[in-house]
Amino acid sequence: MTTTPHGFPSSIIIQPAAEQQHDQQLSLSDKESNQIYYKEKFFTQILDHFNYNPQSYHTFQQRYLINDEYWGGPTTNSPIFVYTGNEGRIDWFAQNTGFMFETAPRFNALLVFIEHRYYGKSVPFGGNKETAYANSSTLGYLSSAQALADYAAVILDLKNNLTAADSPVVVFGGSYGGMLAAWLRLKYPHVAIGALASSAPILNFDNITSSFTFNNIITQDFRSESENCYKVIKRSWQEIEETAAKPGGLEILRKSFKICKNYMSTDYLEGWLGTAYTYTAMTDYPTPTNFLNPMPAYPVKQMCKAIDDPKSGNNTFEKLYAAASIYYNYTGNAKCFNLIDRSDPHGIRPGWNWQACTEMILLTDGNTEDSIFPASNYSYNDRLQYCKSNYDIDPRPTWIPTEFGARHIHRVLKRFGSNIIFFNGLRDPWSGGGVLKDISKSVVAIVAKEGAHHVDLRFSTREDPEWLREVRKREVHIISNWLSQYYHTLADFS
Amino acid sequence: MTTTPHGFPSSIIIQPAAEQQHDQQLSLSDKESNQIYYKEKFFTQILDHFNYNPQSYHTFQQRYLINDEYWGGPTTNSPIFVYTGNEGRIDWFAQNTGFMFETAPRFNALLVFIEHRYYGKSVPFGGNKETAYANSSTLGYLSSAQALADYAAVILDLKNNLTAADSPVVVFGGSYGGMLAAWLRLKYPHVAIGALASSAPILNFDNITSSFTFNNIITQDFRSESENCYKVIKRSWQEIEETAAKPGGLEILRKSFKICKNYMSTDYLEGWLGTAYTYTAMTDYPTPTNFLNPMPAYPVKQMCKAIDDPKSGNNTFEKLYAAASIYYNYTGNAKCFNLIDRSDPHGIRPGWNWQACTEMILLTDGNTEDSIFPASNYSYNDRLQYCKSNYDIDPRPTWIPTEFGARHIHRVLKRFGSNIIFFNGLRDPWSGGGVLKDISKSVVAIVAKEGAHHVDLRFSTREDPEWLREVRKREVHIISNWLSQYYHTLADFS
Repeated sequence: MTTTPHGFPSSIIIQPAAEQQHDQQLSLSDKESNQIYYKEKFFTQILDHFNYNPQSYHTFQQRYLINDEYWGGPTTNSPIFVYTGNEGRIDWFAQNTGFMFETAPRFNALLVFIEHRYYGKSVPFGGNKETAYANSSTLGYLSSAQALADYAAVILDLKNNLTAADSPVVVFGGSYGGMLAAWLRLKYPHVAIGALASSAPILNFDNITSSFTFNNIITQDFRSESENCYKVIKRSWQEIEETAAKPGGLEILRKSFKICKNYMSTDYLEGWLGTAYTYTAMTDYPTPTNFLNPMPAYPVKQMCKAIDDPKSGNNTFEKLYAAASIYYNYTGNAKCFNLIDRSDPHGIRPGWNWQACTEMILLTDGNTEDSIFPASNYSYNDRLQYCKSNYDIDPRPTWIPTEFGARHIHRVLKRFGSNIIFFNGLRDPWSGGGVLKDISKSVVAIVAKEGAHHVDLRFSTREDPEWLREVRKREVHIISNWLSQYYHTLADFS
Repeated sequence: MTTTPHGFPSSIIIQPAAEQQHDQQLSLSDKESNQIYYKEKFFTQILDHFNYNPQSYHTFQQRYLINDEYWGGPTTNSPIFVYTGNEGRIDWFAQNTGFMFETAPRFNALLVFIEHRYYGKSVPFGGNKETAYANSSTLGYLSSAQALADYAAVILDLKNNLTAADSPVVVFGGSYGGMLAAWLRLKYPHVAIGALASSAPILNFDNITSSFTFNNIITQDFRSESENCYKVIKRSWQEIEETAAKPGGLEILRKSFKICKNYMSTDYLEGWLGTAYTYTAMTDYPTPTNFLNPMPAYPVKQMCKAIDDPKSGNNTFEKLYAAASIYYNYTGNAKCFNLIDRSDPHGIRPGWNWQACTEMILLTDGNTEDSIFPASNYSYNDRLQYCKSNYDIDPRPTWIPTEFGARHIHRVLKRFGSNIIFFNGLRDPWSGGGVLKDISKSVVAIVAKEGAHHVDLRFSTREDPEWLREVRKREVHIISNWLSQYYHTLADFS
């Protein structure tokens, strides 16, 4: 999930990234590239499921990816594993959800990855992004409830076309896609028999969990590596401001961080650094990965190692630059960095900025006195102003809890619902908004102290630590139980 | 629920009723009028919950009725009983849901009756019915999903205003309102801890239950009273057609049925008679009532008694007229009848005709060879043409099962969901589309062989038969268990 690190408006507009980042992509490992195979298909989707205005009848082409090489077929009622796409191109999520490819053979499962409306190739208004993203009249149809109804329609139609009415569907998703997976199970139990919701911060709304939690976890991640590392970063914001205030200070900063010759301000520089710390904490995986950027194993540890490196002495900026390079330039190809970078390789921005202004009012921006970032309170007003000026729209911050429920979730679901796994890794700042305790026998929480953002969904590697293997084993075991129970019920009613 | 008896398009447009029907209303019994007390309130509701177009932000005033004379208040977390309004004025439903008034004192419950959008006083576009019902651009916001989100928003806001966050909500509804109650529990478990869904034909869509069932039950109702009665009605359609085909035949029919001097056709006459049989079967209550029209106890029995009366010899039309009078003229005040009657005392028609053209594609119009009505197949095409010509709109006949689930409901909900009572009376033609078997320990079916359309929700009377007392006792017992369980859970988590 894309966040708004270190202050809201600037970071939602600008997600800094290294120049030539696109050329830096590490190639997929042999294993990854070998195992990813799918056909691209399209479903004719209705624009608005919930009203009947003439415009709501317009349709668009919704993309999904399908892999049937492991599927046992409809005669054996073999299962269908569906990824409920989130805010980006679906092929990107497929590439980062190796868990589904790796478990499909065991269950003879059909694999389906459905793209979220308004992302990738699934763009309404004839696929014309300029029109679709133009204003609130056309963007208005981008919402989580519409996306869930899309998924229900695609899945039911697909089962129908495959004459696989009795094939059980299990949904998978990470981050916002994990929220959608959990909500799909809750709202459409007739469509999915169970959901693996990985790193889904469904409680991160409307002050249900604290707005300080997100940055507290980032703080803790760095602090757990070294107290010095935490202190250097924590102190650095003031040093940056002080340097900038001196004559020629901005130029010193520009050179220290190898900023290309574009617009330079401390706000942008701080956003650039904050983004590096935040996304590195989120993707603090135990093996080398290439999800947001190419990164080494345990990248937070690597960042702190760079900061703690005695070679850089007391030179804070040299330390920070070395740390930021782990995130922005692990391949070493970048010559300079753009603070304002408009690249969007995964196709996240135009859709997610809108969602963050309507219903995805995730509370992540508070900083306590101990925070690694400067102390600040979450300000709804900042968000409001940004959304007003960009879309002339008021957010609906209470809508998600109204529609999906979140407050007192343990009490509410203790005797309602079944078959949901909430996975969370406690290194992941989003875990603070997740479900961290079992709700009932079949609505369970799997919590990995050492885990990061939906790490369980990634391809396995030979270097995976034992705890990660155990998490995946447990998930497979639980899904296997759902399926057995489903087949028993099927037999009872046939 | 309003139906489309005996052939679709004519009956959805014209729901015949006796002239001066409004003057005929029986006064409420002392008990009824004494026990109905409420305040009328309004909630500012958003026009479209699921998209973010500028127009979706428009608001309207949604009416609800509230009675707090029995409520124990928030300090004791006393419960809130909510009626989820259906297709008509909410005060009419409140008047016909005495069960809630009668059980409130026992539970110290707050009573709330929420009006459905586009009905009664809850009309968008500034309450301007002409605008709201003008065309699909303004009617488009009338849908069941929007209505459910309305109810969730009203309830959560009300609890907030009453500082009654921990007061459990139980929802009640009959017919379409019963569907909404069940769906609210399934889709919004965080809003309602349980639902009593009375006579809710949630399976009557998309060929999940047979389109012949509805009229089969009407047939069976009459046949159970007397085989002769059934045969007279069954033969009558042909006699009407034969008479009409003769010179002066229409005038004979007009006089036989005391039709006022307006437009006369056999289609309209047959629709008028069919409506009488259908609604009498639906409301075949064991006591005198005034739900749709004033009626005696056991009105189907009364109709058959009129038909079997030896005094009328072989005169079929005299027999039918006597039977129809039980429905149309029980008070004896009507001098003649209008086949085309545009009165709509409960405010059903403009909204429900639209809903029947968009998502409420209830399959009720098939007639087998044995039907009391002429044999015919349900024709989706008839509906389509009507909807095209009236609203220039295509129905979405698969939407309700896609959104709410219905196919294999026992299998789907066996391990999902909790706390729903599905009541059905088997005399009620709608019962064929209801849930008639227990799904799980806490999703249960109560079936009354002698019961009619949501009879359980009516005020009790001294004449109520034992089975009806037992049904209500069981419902109270189950609701009481939900509440105990809720308070236990509340204690566990506090």
